[in-house]
Amino acid sequence: MSLLTIGTVAFDDIETPFGHAEKVVGGACTYISWAASYFIHDIKLVSIVGDDFPTDELKAMEKRGVDLTGLEIIPGKKTFFWAGRYHANMNQRDTLTTDLNVLAEFNPVLPVSYRRCEYVMLGNLTPEIQLQVIRQLDNRPKLIALDTMNFWMDVALDGLKSVLHEVDLLTINDEEARQLSGEYSLVLAAQKIFEMGPKFLVVKKGEHGAFLFTRDRIFYAPALPLTEVKDPTGAGDTFAGGFMGYLAKTDDISFENMKRAIIYGSAMASFCVEAFSLDRLKTLDDGLITQRVKRFADLVHFDI
Amino acid sequence: MSLLTIGTVAFDDIETPFGHAEKVVGGACTYISWAASYFIHDIKLVSIVGDDFPTDELKAMEKRGVDLTGLEIIPGKKTFFWAGRYHANMNQRDTLTTDLNVLAEFNPVLPVSYRRCEYVMLGNLTPEIQLQVIRQLDNRPKLIALDTMNFWMDVALDGLKSVLHEVDLLTINDEEARQLSGEYSLVLAAQKIFEMGPKFLVVKKGEHGAFLFTRDRIFYAPALPLTEVKDPTGAGDTFAGGFMGYLAKTDDISFENMKRAIIYGSAMASFCVEAFSLDRLKTLDDGLITQRVKRFADLVHFDI
Repeated sequence: MSLLTIGTVAFDDIETPFGHAEKVVGGACTYISWAASYFIHDIKLVSIVGDDFPTDELKAMEKRGVDLTGLEIIPGKKTFFWAGRYHANMNQRDTLTTDLNVLAEFNPVLPVSYRRCEYVMLGNLTPEIQLQVIRQLDNRPKLIALDTMNFWMDVALDGLKSVLHEVDLLTINDEEARQLSGEYSLVLAAQKIFEMGPKFLVVKKGEHGAFLFTRDRIFYAPALPLTEVKDPTGAGDTFAGGFMGYLAKTDDISFENMKRAIIYGSAMASFCVEAFSLDRLKTLDDGLITQRVKRFADLVHFDI
Repeated sequence: MSLLTIGTVAFDDIETPFGHAEKVVGGACTYISWAASYFIHDIKLVSIVGDDFPTDELKAMEKRGVDLTGLEIIPGKKTFFWAGRYHANMNQRDTLTTDLNVLAEFNPVLPVSYRRCEYVMLGNLTPEIQLQVIRQLDNRPKLIALDTMNFWMDVALDGLKSVLHEVDLLTINDEEARQLSGEYSLVLAAQKIFEMGPKFLVVKKGEHGAFLFTRDRIFYAPALPLTEVKDPTGAGDTFAGGFMGYLAKTDDISFENMKRAIIYGSAMASFCVEAFSLDRLKTLDDGLITQRVKRFADLVHFDI
């Protein structure tokens, strides 16, 4: 199965209590694609960069099965840049700089070869652009997943609601689920969000794990307690990439299989945070991933 | 098996985003005893109240198998009073009033009938008093568990370290584990805390669940996502009461059984938060508890 993904490809400056990284590779689409590449080799990336983005990084992605036909490279312009600093608790961060650069003129036109696909992961971007991608598809994919954030709820709620109508699954964090729904209880928040369109809701809680809600079922996956957490940047996107990659590989969107996908996504995210940028994510293999998934199973297992 | 428990028996004023309760029954020892009473009927309570504490409440506890020989009732004096207000996120709260009243003169002397017991739950109190209770025991219990809080780390760290040397298990929240150990990673925090005395560490994360750490193993129990969360007061104590009650009932402190005890504790806490004071906790039965434990099993179950 193929996975279409859209989002940023970027440079990041990152400060955490455990270190600092300058102008390293980042971006939602980069993390999603790398994570998904451990499950499938038919990933269609849609994004935009300047001519300052390293060719080596693009070649490395192509080697992993990421189709870059949909990546615009704008000569003489700069790649999107984000700088952020994490608080001591690592679950909160401040944005220090956002230089949109090429992202200001992002107006994605899907290559013809991208217009039929089974799985779609819309990374965090303007809701209008997310919707524009859906509208260019020739078929209705089996699963369209949308990531978004509180910023769009504040400044583009109508646009966000329009795209929510068109998607199957929404991934947001717990505060965002509460903001979007106006409900404190995540159970009630999920029900309100289902009225907006999605049939599935994934609530990401960072170091506190993730929930998968459907109309009548709930699954919870913990985050693995780690000895070393260096940088949470991209963990949510890595989770989404692992989740969608696993679903695309198995081509099964039953609740039982989605639970497995949540665990695989969580496992990928647990690798992501162990190093800055994609450093850890680039060094994995099936054996390491399987081993880590086993640790999730052990962590929550009990017999009554 | 018998469970000895010490802690406050109190009146609380509570404000949450979902309501307000005035001068309701509270206190660590009250929650611990009620929760444990669903598992065992030999609970030895050590606490202190004024003569303003309702006799009906005491009779109701005695009916549940709570021995009140160790409860001092001071004529002409008032019961400990606490008032607090929860933030919108319910995981944080401000203390508005603390009237120690009789608690200022609490100097517990264990009744002779209390001095041999297998399980001990030391509720959150001055470390000195917690230590004083341990020193009065005639035998070494199978398990001594200690609850404490950041306040004692700030004002009585030496006293806390003295009592930590004498206990088997510590229950604190994640911020407190980080404060006590100076480690951000909970895995490393646990290792540091084991050097202080305990062999087991339970990290309570409120709506984000709880960890059980031993030197070489980790178990994680989620919190149940609930439709209605009215008041988190006493949830930690209820958890501890359910946990210790289950251990005392089964008389088995293997890791496998402790995992079950964590789930039973979590189930009891999930009832506690559904109403103010002990209102929900007083209306349970084995069937309801078993049903809820089953929901915890379903919530995290997946097949790989």
